[in-house]
Amino acid sequence: MTVSRPSGRAHDQLRNITIERHYTRHAEGSVLIACGDTRVLCTASVEERLPPWLRGKGEGWVTAEYGMLPRATATRTQREATRGSQGGRTMEIQRLIGRSLRACVDRQALGERVITLDCDVLQADGGTRTAAITGAYVALVDAVNVLLKRENLRRNPIIGAVAAISVGVYQGMPVLDLDYAEDANCDTDMNVVMNDGGGLIEVQGTAEGHAFRRHEMDAMLDLAEKGIGELIRLQREALESN
Amino acid sequence: MTVSRPSGRAHDQLRNITIERHYTRHAEGSVLIACGDTRVLCTASVEERLPPWLRGKGEGWVTAEYGMLPRATATRTQREATRGSQGGRTMEIQRLIGRSLRACVDRQALGERVITLDCDVLQADGGTRTAAITGAYVALVDAVNVLLKRENLRRNPIIGAVAAISVGVYQGMPVLDLDYAEDANCDTDMNVVMNDGGGLIEVQGTAEGHAFRRHEMDAMLDLAEKGIGELIRLQREALESN
Amino acid sequence: MTVSRPSGRAHDQLRNITIERHYTRHAEGSVLIACGDTRVLCTASVEERLPPWLRGKGEGWVTAEYGMLPRATATRTQREATRGSQGGRTMEIQRLIGRSLRACVDRQALGERVITLDCDVLQADGGTRTAAITGAYVALVDAVNVLLKRENLRRNPIIGAVAAISVGVYQGMPVLDLDYAEDANCDTDMNVVMNDGGGLIEVQGTAEGHAFRRHEMDAMLDLAEKGIGELIRLQREALESN
Amino acid sequence: MTVSRPSGRAHDQLRNITIERHYTRHAEGSVLIACGDTRVLCTASVEERLPPWLRGKGEGWVTAEYGMLPRATATRTQREATRGSQGGRTMEIQRLIGRSLRACVDRQALGERVITLDCDVLQADGGTRTAAITGAYVALVDAVNVLLKRENLRRNPIIGAVAAISVGVYQGMPVLDLDYAEDANCDTDMNVVMNDGGGLIEVQGTAEGHAFRRHEMDAMLDLAEKGIGELIRLQREALESN
Amino acid sequence: MTVSRPSGRAHDQLRNITIERHYTRHAEGSVLIACGDTRVLCTASVEERLPPWLRGKGEGWVTAEYGMLPRATATRTQREATRGSQGGRTMEIQRLIGRSLRACVDRQALGERVITLDCDVLQADGGTRTAAITGAYVALVDAVNVLLKRENLRRNPIIGAVAAISVGVYQGMPVLDLDYAEDANCDTDMNVVMNDGGGLIEVQGTAEGHAFRRHEMDAMLDLAEKGIGELIRLQREALESN
Amino acid sequence: MTVSRPSGRAHDQLRNITIERHYTRHAEGSVLIACGDTRVLCTASVEERLPPWLRGKGEGWVTAEYGMLPRATATRTQREATRGSQGGRTMEIQRLIGRSLRACVDRQALGERVITLDCDVLQADGGTRTAAITGAYVALVDAVNVLLKRENLRRNPIIGAVAAISVGVYQGMPVLDLDYAEDANCDTDMNVVMNDGGGLIEVQGTAEGHAFRRHEMDAMLDLAEKGIGELIRLQREALESN
Repeated sequence: MTVSRPSGRAHDQLRNITIERHYTRHAEGSVLIACGDTRVLCTASVEERLPPWLRGKGEGWVTAEYGMLPRATATRTQREATRGSQGGRTMEIQRLIGRSLRACVDRQALGERVITLDCDVLQADGGTRTAAITGAYVALVDAVNVLLKRENLRRNPIIGAVAAISVGVYQGMPVLDLDYAEDANCDTDMNVVMNDGGGLIEVQGTAEGHAFRRHEMDAMLDLAEKGIGELIRLQREALESN
Repeated sequence: MTVSRPSGRAHDQLRNITIERHYTRHAEGSVLIACGDTRVLCTASVEERLPPWLRGKGEGWVTAEYGMLPRATATRTQREATRGSQGGRTMEIQRLIGRSLRACVDRQALGERVITLDCDVLQADGGTRTAAITGAYVALVDAVNVLLKRENLRRNPIIGAVAAISVGVYQGMPVLDLDYAEDANCDTDMNVVMNDGGGLIEVQGTAEGHAFRRHEMDAMLDLAEKGIGELIRLQREALESN
Repeated sequence: MTVSRPSGRAHDQLRNITIERHYTRHAEGSVLIACGDTRVLCTASVEERLPPWLRGKGEGWVTAEYGMLPRATATRTQREATRGSQGGRTMEIQRLIGRSLRACVDRQALGERVITLDCDVLQADGGTRTAAITGAYVALVDAVNVLLKRENLRRNPIIGAVAAISVGVYQGMPVLDLDYAEDANCDTDMNVVMNDGGGLIEVQGTAEGHAFRRHEMDAMLDLAEKGIGELIRLQREALESN
Repeated sequence: MTVSRPSGRAHDQLRNITIERHYTRHAEGSVLIACGDTRVLCTASVEERLPPWLRGKGEGWVTAEYGMLPRATATRTQREATRGSQGGRTMEIQRLIGRSLRACVDRQALGERVITLDCDVLQADGGTRTAAITGAYVALVDAVNVLLKRENLRRNPIIGAVAAISVGVYQGMPVLDLDYAEDANCDTDMNVVMNDGGGLIEVQGTAEGHAFRRHEMDAMLDLAEKGIGELIRLQREALESN
Repeated sequence: MTVSRPSGRAHDQLRNITIERHYTRHAEGSVLIACGDTRVLCTASVEERLPPWLRGKGEGWVTAEYGMLPRATATRTQREATRGSQGGRTMEIQRLIGRSLRACVDRQALGERVITLDCDVLQADGGTRTAAITGAYVALVDAVNVLLKRENLRRNPIIGAVAAISVGVYQGMPVLDLDYAEDANCDTDMNVVMNDGGGLIEVQGTAEGHAFRRHEMDAMLDLAEKGIGELIRLQREALESN
Repeated sequence: MTVSRPSGRAHDQLRNITIERHYTRHAEGSVLIACGDTRVLCTASVEERLPPWLRGKGEGWVTAEYGMLPRATATRTQREATRGSQGGRTMEIQRLIGRSLRACVDRQALGERVITLDCDVLQADGGTRTAAITGAYVALVDAVNVLLKRENLRRNPIIGAVAAISVGVYQGMPVLDLDYAEDANCDTDMNVVMNDGGGLIEVQGTAEGHAFRRHEMDAMLDLAEKGIGELIRLQREALESN
């Protein structure tokens, strides 16, 4: 197949990814991740408190909240704070981010505290939720390192790396890392979350146009595996840099 | 593998499924679906109106809302109407139901009207969202048949059947149609929506315990395909009965 | 007077009433009551907690919540959970149900716990609030019996039976148990709640068309007394059946 | 019976009632009614608009809203505007006021406009809802007179007077016009709304302690009839004064 | 300059001010303040509780809430309780009132309790927020005197008097105490809060039409100082009267 | 006076200010303003719609919304979108921003459209509201220039420049541009908005500790005038750069 992508990328090519740590100064972890034109600010905040339903169990919690600045998008979207509630899409995404990050944390080792991952989209061009997961992992590690440095933890609760990418079928061709132009016109859109052991953490595939077949699903999963491998390498490089 | 399921079912065995049409009398389609002890009332309501963002486009809309009666569950859950908003889980589920059902409708053939699928869980024992999709399809067909009988439609907008089932990895073994006892203790939980052509419409897999591997995913998809085949046969029988 | 009712019933004739216990399995009490085409699911949930304002007083609480499934009615009504709050009619009704059921409970004998009566209308054809009260009483007794069996109570807190019915003036004639066709066209609508000792617990009469006179009120109360007598007998039969 | 009332009033004696018109200057009708220590400001506002569901029917609407200033009561109650919604008691009361006042208006004669009766309790000592109805009637007549003077109406839409009072059984004795000390300790509390033709518009009786009997109900209705007769006379005097 | 004010007042002349104490009977302090046609009911409620964030600090809190009756204004405004939240203007005003009154209280001397100042506008004609501050001070002193009489306080926590007035530039002329006709047409509107030592507590100036110059600001502050001097004298007289 | 500021700045010295245009790509104007460690993203969004109350008047509207990312602050603040409403502080600030920016726009020249200024604080260190105003002005000019380039406007609606700064009394000394360390400990805090003609648009001074005197107010206004002069020069330079 020789379908050309709007961006001119190869079918298995990620956009330019940059991961900037310590982007803001208050949070224990603060990462600006850029996937092409998508830019998400991910902060990890440590709080020495527990949600009521977890008290007395000797373990911690990792949760996420997601937001978009009103003009992160091509036309202005209403601010959820003025609307009075988070929309269904927001809730769905922040639940996904939270589950994904909890998958790489030993909550007993974390102890009785909460880490909240706030993922705020400054600029959107497709793939904001997978960028959020990939960036939030780096912020989470930075926050845990702060706790380790403060000697608040006996052992490191991070039990693996987690990253995420979208894949899809665009004009009949499986492609990696959809940007907005592809996302708005693809037949199938799938978000995949994996760990650094090659295990699957979340798979969410949706037929936008017509239903997809098992062989397409297989091709998409192969692409996701390749892309996530690269992302985990980029996370590691970012964490190893000063 | 010889793991025994709490219910004593074989690993590829559905629970007892019954589909009762015309369960209530006002809705154009009204179906009570029981999957073992899970019971969901699915009504399809036709309204001759359009959401604002769809006006003037010559097509219709299919949407879904999901609810649980407060004591559908083992302990009472707060009523969302008194809480003041729908929770994240509810929103996630009703968005899934809506997308799934839209996948079997030609919205231009439907014309400028809305069909709302209300899926209300009377009793929960795992798999409420997939039961809702499977039941809502039957209610939707009944509602469309009312419109056809009233000669409100030129051609049938239903372009295929849709059904859904959950699959999972329970104590290391891929199993079909998780009940609550399995769902609460499984490693992986996956909801699969397919059409009668064998195409995939939604795949939502979540690692509850540890990450799952590609071969497990394949085994789960095989089970789902088998189960959905049976469900589509049951839908057809229900629709063909008086 | 020889006005004919839309249903063909005599002026002092109830609709067919059925009371089905153990309709769902999780709640301590679960009753489906049908009054003609009106069907209400009433569950009684026991919770070992107290509202803050009752702590330390050595007594319990009985409360009620009321809801209608969106398509219980001839045209779809908006779900209160998406609307963001319960409407005035819902609040008025659930307050009435709660007060009525508290009138048959010795709250000190109940001990420091809450019983919540959830009354959800599956299908509406007039008289949903009175059906809810009549059904909720049976669910409440079942829940109390569960507590007695568990030896959580020293003595039975139920101090009497409670049932309710609507009466009205339809085309000049006092009639018993209005269905929707009558309710929408009557001059006066009155809901009456009584106990098995013939005492009045609530009387709520409203002039829909023109004001009503004392002799009409008397005639309506006579009809209500007769109807409630029959309902209390039906409650007793249901509770005595296996 | 020789039970003494806390206030020393005879069993059939109203509290001091004053009706002050033109209490505030902006509203078309503005009345401060005092029933003993209960003081309610009732304003009638005319708006040349219609609720959506009434458009094109050639008739108007009369509606009511009820509120309590936070410190109208012995201890401060939370402001409903900060709480984020009106409570059940408020909704129940304002629905009652609205229905009662609509009973004295010919809505076709009113024409396509809305009159809103805002009843705000400045000081509460029992009987606020009945005081609100009695005062709102005077405000409504004043507002209609403004419309008549402006020649906005062809004929007077007021078809009768409406007033309301509470009655109850206090220490076994039927009494008229309960103040807070009696209301908090009575066995039965009943609110009665009547017109100047002696017709009943609303009857809402509640057994607070134990159930009430038909003869008690009759005695209460007799008292209410007497009290409402006096109130209607006081309304007339107020309206006839300058 | 010889611009004439709509009311015929001199440029440095206050409207008629009356301060009526004990206006309602339940609140520890209850003051009706009238500034011309603006009438605000200010109650001070003492509660023996603390907001969570102040517990264990050995000091109290003074806070304010502001509301307008729906028909305090020329056209009816929607009730904030039905709207579901307080608007921005309300919040801004009640925050201003709270800050202003806290400036005259020694919160340690007050002890661990809350005084809430509810300022409800019965009739609006400009200057409601400054009237609220001026009246609330008197209500606060009355409430503190109740506490002193009950011997709940070791020493008087009131450390000074506080009053407020609006000033503006109307048709080029600095004027004192704007009424609505001036407020709606002025170039600059400034609210000034001062204490009885001549110190400034709040200054909030807004250019409505075009920007204002330093010399205009100075002239406005001079007028405010004069007006507040008179108000503090009127507060003192009211507090010294019976 | 020789009080030393925590930052070591002179009493009349601004923090480092940078104004970065085109910070995000979708908005018509998008500016990141940094005042020391305070960083606010200001976007200007043009929408070809009008609020209902402005229809048919031939003029446009400029409005503002303000938000803080949850971890812009030293400890995490709850997201207003999950809380369900904007707090009082947020409302107060966004109303101030809106009023300030409207003061530099000829709304008839703007035509029937809305420009919304979204000011989102990425990092907070005092002075976020004044930074927001100063940055929003640049975003607004960029957005207007887009409209001029598209030939949507006949003439430029910008009638002047607007900038804002905070001043205060810190340890007895009037200082310019408070950072958080000063703001949290100052006696008086004043926000001043001025235009490039030296006119005052808003003055909001608050006594945090004890009341301030006229000569302190004069000194603060002098500092503000100096600081705003510099800010307007920096705005001009930013707008003139490529």
